[in-house]
Amino acid sequence: MAFTFTPQQELAPECEVNLQQVRQPQYGRYLEEYVPGQLFVHPRGFTFTRASIDSFSRTYMQCNPLYLDLEYAKAHGFNDLTASPQMVFNVVLSLGVQNDSEKVIANLGYYNAQFLNPVYPGDTVRAMTMVVDRKERGADKPGIVTIRTLGLNQQDQVVLQYERKLMVAYRGERLATIPVSDAPTPAFPWQETASVNLPQTTAKHLSSVPQSVTGWNTYAANFKPGDIIVHNNGRTITEEHFALTYQVGNTHPLHYDKVFSQSLSGPMSGNPIVYGGLVFAWLEGLASRDLSENAIWELGFTEGYHTQPAVAGDTVFALSRILSVDKAPADLSDLAEVITVQFIGVKNMTSAAAFEEFGADLFIKENNKKAMGKDKIPAKIFEIERRLLIKNAR
Amino acid sequence: MAFTFTPQQELAPECEVNLQQVRQPQYGRYLEEYVPGQLFVHPRGFTFTRASIDSFSRTYMQCNPLYLDLEYAKAHGFNDLTASPQMVFNVVLSLGVQNDSEKVIANLGYYNAQFLNPVYPGDTVRAMTMVVDRKERGADKPGIVTIRTLGLNQQDQVVLQYERKLMVAYRGERLATIPVSDAPTPAFPWQETASVNLPQTTAKHLSSVPQSVTGWNTYAANFKPGDIIVHNNGRTITEEHFALTYQVGNTHPLHYDKVFSQSLSGPMSGNPIVYGGLVFAWLEGLASRDLSENAIWELGFTEGYHTQPAVAGDTVFALSRILSVDKAPADLSDLAEVITVQFIGVKNMTSAAAFEEFGADLFIKENNKKAMGKDKIPAKIFEIERRLLIKNAR
Amino acid sequence: MAFTFTPQQELAPECEVNLQQVRQPQYGRYLEEYVPGQLFVHPRGFTFTRASIDSFSRTYMQCNPLYLDLEYAKAHGFNDLTASPQMVFNVVLSLGVQNDSEKVIANLGYYNAQFLNPVYPGDTVRAMTMVVDRKERGADKPGIVTIRTLGLNQQDQVVLQYERKLMVAYRGERLATIPVSDAPTPAFPWQETASVNLPQTTAKHLSSVPQSVTGWNTYAANFKPGDIIVHNNGRTITEEHFALTYQVGNTHPLHYDKVFSQSLSGPMSGNPIVYGGLVFAWLEGLASRDLSENAIWELGFTEGYHTQPAVAGDTVFALSRILSVDKAPADLSDLAEVITVQFIGVKNMTSAAAFEEFGADLFIKENNKKAMGKDKIPAKIFEIERRLLIKNAR
Repeated sequence: MAFTFTPQQELAPECEVNLQQVRQPQYGRYLEEYVPGQLFVHPRGFTFTRASIDSFSRTYMQCNPLYLDLEYAKAHGFNDLTASPQMVFNVVLSLGVQNDSEKVIANLGYYNAQFLNPVYPGDTVRAMTMVVDRKERGADKPGIVTIRTLGLNQQDQVVLQYERKLMVAYRGERLATIPVSDAPTPAFPWQETASVNLPQTTAKHLSSVPQSVTGWNTYAANFKPGDIIVHNNGRTITEEHFALTYQVGNTHPLHYDKVFSQSLSGPMSGNPIVYGGLVFAWLEGLASRDLSENAIWELGFTEGYHTQPAVAGDTVFALSRILSVDKAPADLSDLAEVITVQFIGVKNMTSAAAFEEFGADLFIKENNKKAMGKDKIPAKIFEIERRLLIKNAR
Repeated sequence: MAFTFTPQQELAPECEVNLQQVRQPQYGRYLEEYVPGQLFVHPRGFTFTRASIDSFSRTYMQCNPLYLDLEYAKAHGFNDLTASPQMVFNVVLSLGVQNDSEKVIANLGYYNAQFLNPVYPGDTVRAMTMVVDRKERGADKPGIVTIRTLGLNQQDQVVLQYERKLMVAYRGERLATIPVSDAPTPAFPWQETASVNLPQTTAKHLSSVPQSVTGWNTYAANFKPGDIIVHNNGRTITEEHFALTYQVGNTHPLHYDKVFSQSLSGPMSGNPIVYGGLVFAWLEGLASRDLSENAIWELGFTEGYHTQPAVAGDTVFALSRILSVDKAPADLSDLAEVITVQFIGVKNMTSAAAFEEFGADLFIKENNKKAMGKDKIPAKIFEIERRLLIKNAR
Repeated sequence: MAFTFTPQQELAPECEVNLQQVRQPQYGRYLEEYVPGQLFVHPRGFTFTRASIDSFSRTYMQCNPLYLDLEYAKAHGFNDLTASPQMVFNVVLSLGVQNDSEKVIANLGYYNAQFLNPVYPGDTVRAMTMVVDRKERGADKPGIVTIRTLGLNQQDQVVLQYERKLMVAYRGERLATIPVSDAPTPAFPWQETASVNLPQTTAKHLSSVPQSVTGWNTYAANFKPGDIIVHNNGRTITEEHFALTYQVGNTHPLHYDKVFSQSLSGPMSGNPIVYGGLVFAWLEGLASRDLSENAIWELGFTEGYHTQPAVAGDTVFALSRILSVDKAPADLSDLAEVITVQFIGVKNMTSAAAFEEFGADLFIKENNKKAMGKDKIPAKIFEIERRLLIKNAR
């Protein structure tokens, strides 16, 4: 379909400027703009490639070869390199920012995240969000909004579902944001009892994978309830995080626009804050060699809190505590265990130093400390509970 | 084809050093080394991959899903993710730097850029340049060289053509640069009346694409001549730009070599200057959510000027002004409009603050201001006129 | 294979913290943990993609189109873009760090590196290391360990073999590191007389490749023994190197963990040191336009020493000296020459300034200088001898 276009002529000098004919589009929402039951179909999809899957894993220092080594992934029954669930989480959350959280004051927590299907190269993931609850706390205080988000692939299979709580201010006199679409609302297939689809042949394959290709200390039998694992290496985050924010599709200017960050007051002002999903990803990667190198699947996580922000120049470290070791479902019961982990991030001190200094207090949720008469730990940046499917050694 | 090589032995200690047997190859050209009619076939091609197309779009914060979402691109009749024309422009210009501009003092302007064919994953683009004009302005002043550059794919289809004006110093006593090849000169298929080839099925597909996957405010009907759009978010450029320069193939040391930058005097000295193509790319991305999310094609641009340099640490913002809304050619006339936009970049103040402070003067070309008795705006970094093919809402 | 999992319940508050049930896994080895004859099968493979091959070449400013331009690579008989041997070296060394060198004090040198097979997109490379020698120098001094490493593709073809010498401290009271696997030890196919496998059709293709796609000054005939080439452009390394370290799979915290770097004393303390493989890669790229743009293959290198560390902010430059020009093996003897090059890196001064200031001393190995009564050159960061197969002009 060929079209001929006339050469482009300069037009601006002849086109009079009318300073009143102006607009400044706003994205995200203020408190009064969320209504329980509302459904946002987020714009844009995200096509995964073998290279972006690999690059994400390497950027965040992932050691599980499922996300790095095509031969290993195939030997476990996967069709191709599989995107790390952490990447899928980062992408699905980010696709929703434009509707869900581009105006929020803070992300309060992640709950009930479940990864339901693998994402492969060539898959395109889209996201939808439903507003579940809006709690007002008086006219002079920000409210609390609860949302549920789904990520779906191009066959409309749910790859991820999770809940998030947000702290949101009233709009007041500010510019209005995105109008709610009047397009017909699609179904919102949230699963109360979530079903995880792993490749048909994973169980068969698991009984024949050579062990030499992963580490010695991360089979299911290496983990007992109560084990604390101090992960040795840290990662200094650089200004790379500005670009990484939009690599996963996150549009919030708090993470890449210094003029915006410097216009804020309070704990978020100053240098751009690292998008929390990236912090979680680095912490997961730093721990992976000691914890999840032999994971077959991340089942999900809950009770996730960013207890302090991170900025470029901060060095982050991780600790894990094994909370339970449970039988895997029938077909996998001889091959793997379900391991639940309390996962903690600290910054600017090694995890060994933090363990030495704060001991058991590291493992108490920061929000519970006030009621217990304890001080918060400023070096602690993250806490969450993760549930992993980890294979047995043969 | 197997070859056996003898083990490598250390040779250096036995090989006497002759300090006279030395050379220091130079690239780029000085004023007397450009001759109108000369044709440079630039070395190296650039193979696009699905991942590099995706990564470019994400680095520069592009929101048009044609460059991010495979399903969306296919739903518009494209074979695969398509490279953003902005990426194609960055690559084609950069492939020519070694011959065209690695010694120039400044890039004066871009003119008559037209994107004639999509570039897909697996395509390899090469570039050629013809010297169109050389204007000398006296022995003590740099001259002005006008060049035309073509980007061609592996089937010799022109994907981009544009003109550039360069400010170039005389060589004088300096080392000679690249000799002109004496290989036979290929044809230079510049099109005076440019023909744009979109996929055969784009028109058919446009009548059935779901609207939910893009934003609410960027269909053709959302734009009226005279509209001014203040794009809300900025992007702080980091030292990432050193690496991004050669990601698109640009070899000029001004953009990544601090020793070189510090050896200069004048406005380009100090820290490496961000390659202008990258600045344009970030500005385009920042505006895309409000302007081009529903563009089917970038037809091209003209009268493009980098009015101030940018360095790492600068935060850039964009404004758009709609100059005209015109009928699309026959097959597309019900489906899309041709929209011409004056596109402005500022730095280190929000576009809203710049609009407030400078008003209509933002939209006057900096080079015209002296004759009008007006001062230049130091915060303004870029100005250009873009022509877009934007679809109608259904 | 679908599994239903019960919703994840918060467990941490009910799971008592036992501070004694703690471990801190260590990687790498101390002197007493290396035993000559030991074989390490390194965990994780590395799957190459067309995009990661391209991205590596662009990050390190490679100009040889074999690694950038699919059409050119195919025109030389390669199946696809081929990974640069430099990338393969970086990856294979990095895959071994966890076993070989994550606790070493310094990398002393590279020897006898030979690239034996091309690596293509979709290939997965694994690595194995054999301990060849351990030299103790007294209880208060670090020892010297010599290792041999192989990189193998998914068909068990050796793609690279090389030797490395490491300076390693005694463990003493420190935490034990990785136990040696008791899995059966595979064969270790080191080749004393190495055989290089190039594509069957390379010789045929070489006689018909158009010359315009590469530079004018890098055919075999452009190089004579004794030629010194001062490469003009430098590259300022930024904090990008933190992330690039793990992009190639290197796990040593010296390169990305400021808390670790600041805990050290001596010349490695302070800011994270750039992983030496990356320094070599940038130097190779900076020289490639003048030296290896027409190379068909990197045969290998030896006597490679990082004579000073580099950190973010340093600008690196390269010089080459031609040591010999030798006949290529039979099938290639009319088409290419084997060229051996002494290759030098300097920092924070141009290579021209270093050549001017240090002259012939630049080309003396730093470790030989003391015996010659000469001072070391602090600006010199790297020295190596490379052997290249470079094609003739037709």
